[in-house]
Amino acid sequence: MTHAADAAFARHCETLGIQFEPDIKPGANYDVAVEHDGEVWISGQVPRVQGQIAVTGALGATATLADGQRAAAICVLRALAILQQRLGSLARVTRLLRMTVYTNSASGFTQHSEVSDGASAVLYDVFAPNGAHTRTSVGVAALPKNAAVELDLVVAVSAA
Amino acid sequence: MTHAADAAFARHCETLGIQFEPDIKPGANYDVAVEHDGEVWISGQVPRVQGQIAVTGALGATATLADGQRAAAICVLRALAILQQRLGSLARVTRLLRMTVYTNSASGFTQHSEVSDGASAVLYDVFAPNGAHTRTSVGVAALPKNAAVELDLVVAVSAA
Amino acid sequence: MTHAADAAFARHCETLGIQFEPDIKPGANYDVAVEHDGEVWISGQVPRVQGQIAVTGALGATATLADGQRAAAICVLRALAILQQRLGSLARVTRLLRMTVYTNSASGFTQHSEVSDGASAVLYDVFAPNGAHTRTSVGVAALPKNAAVELDLVVAVSAA
Repeated sequence: MTHAADAAFARHCETLGIQFEPDIKPGANYDVAVEHDGEVWISGQVPRVQGQIAVTGALGATATLADGQRAAAICVLRALAILQQRLGSLARVTRLLRMTVYTNSASGFTQHSEVSDGASAVLYDVFAPNGAHTRTSVGVAALPKNAAVELDLVVAVSAA
Repeated sequence: MTHAADAAFARHCETLGIQFEPDIKPGANYDVAVEHDGEVWISGQVPRVQGQIAVTGALGATATLADGQRAAAICVLRALAILQQRLGSLARVTRLLRMTVYTNSASGFTQHSEVSDGASAVLYDVFAPNGAHTRTSVGVAALPKNAAVELDLVVAVSAA
Repeated sequence: MTHAADAAFARHCETLGIQFEPDIKPGANYDVAVEHDGEVWISGQVPRVQGQIAVTGALGATATLADGQRAAAICVLRALAILQQRLGSLARVTRLLRMTVYTNSASGFTQHSEVSDGASAVLYDVFAPNGAHTRTSVGVAALPKNAAVELDLVVAVSAA
């Protein structure tokens, strides 16, 4: 039987028309996730799907708010895909501790919180009714591969 | 009896002439704090007081170093207000683990550490003699609602 | 007998021709490291050696990728120097949880991950075969003292 969170995750990917690699690997010399003492730290994720960056550009310049929200949703789904691959099921996630969202921003852009909402909505839906999480949203000058958004997560998990 | 940290917090707010909402809510779809396993993660705070951003603009352009220091102090006091509302008293805070300070910066600005000092001074005073904390200070391209500073915290707390 | 990690650390410093202060102090009003509940949080480190910033400038403008990688290596070695001074030996480090790397970036620069590789390579070598770590790499508008790179760490440690 598929756990509710895993089913909701699959539904979000289907809605966005994306399918992640079955064994997500880091882009360079690090690891995508580290589990320690009941917490999993997940590396910064850009909206990469099957080797392609789905949404690029700076908000307030070449990318729209809607682009940013879609990018944030893809980033967080990629982070959840990593969690699911590591943990076996998202059912092991018990609390969401921190999401830090970096939006590629022209200097006049100020809707970072609205961009992050694209990712938060996914978390609230996938982990309902326990989707509460803290969040930090900032605008950065540049991101790897010109991604529109990058985000990382720290979550608490139950024992395997 | 008011605990020393709560009293010092109130004194700092009074000195700055600010009074936070009695029940601080997130600006969007997330939570302002999550407590787990003896730690509290607090969402990124801008210098918001009663719905208004008290200090806006980029350091090195439209905001001065003094503006930035005042913004940092308000941000950290807002984070402490959230802690106090969640914990009942700041007396439950036992260690300060991390403060990350994002300063809205023109590209030539380099005094991020001096900006953060505005927040660190509050922490040292409120939690004396246990105000030691780690800190990361960076300059970002843009912040939500054009806030001059945003910061987040992770703290350790005693059992309720 | 010197532990393998301490020896590797010394070798990396020698290769880069750098020697850190024997008692690294914070640049301002905070602490360089805080240990709590089996974890050590290390403050953001710029490539400072004996009071001088070894590598300055923005990547994609006045600093090259090679400069950034050297800066990242010096930053992470400085973080390890702090850990070694606090813990007595790097042998007490059991897991690397998070490295966040902020690269001073012109808006068109996109090789942040490649910059971070300069630090990750040091971690993999010093802590082999347990050098795995999560990582977030972003490009920021400005850094303290115009440093080319700043990074912070969270690590797990064994009991003293």
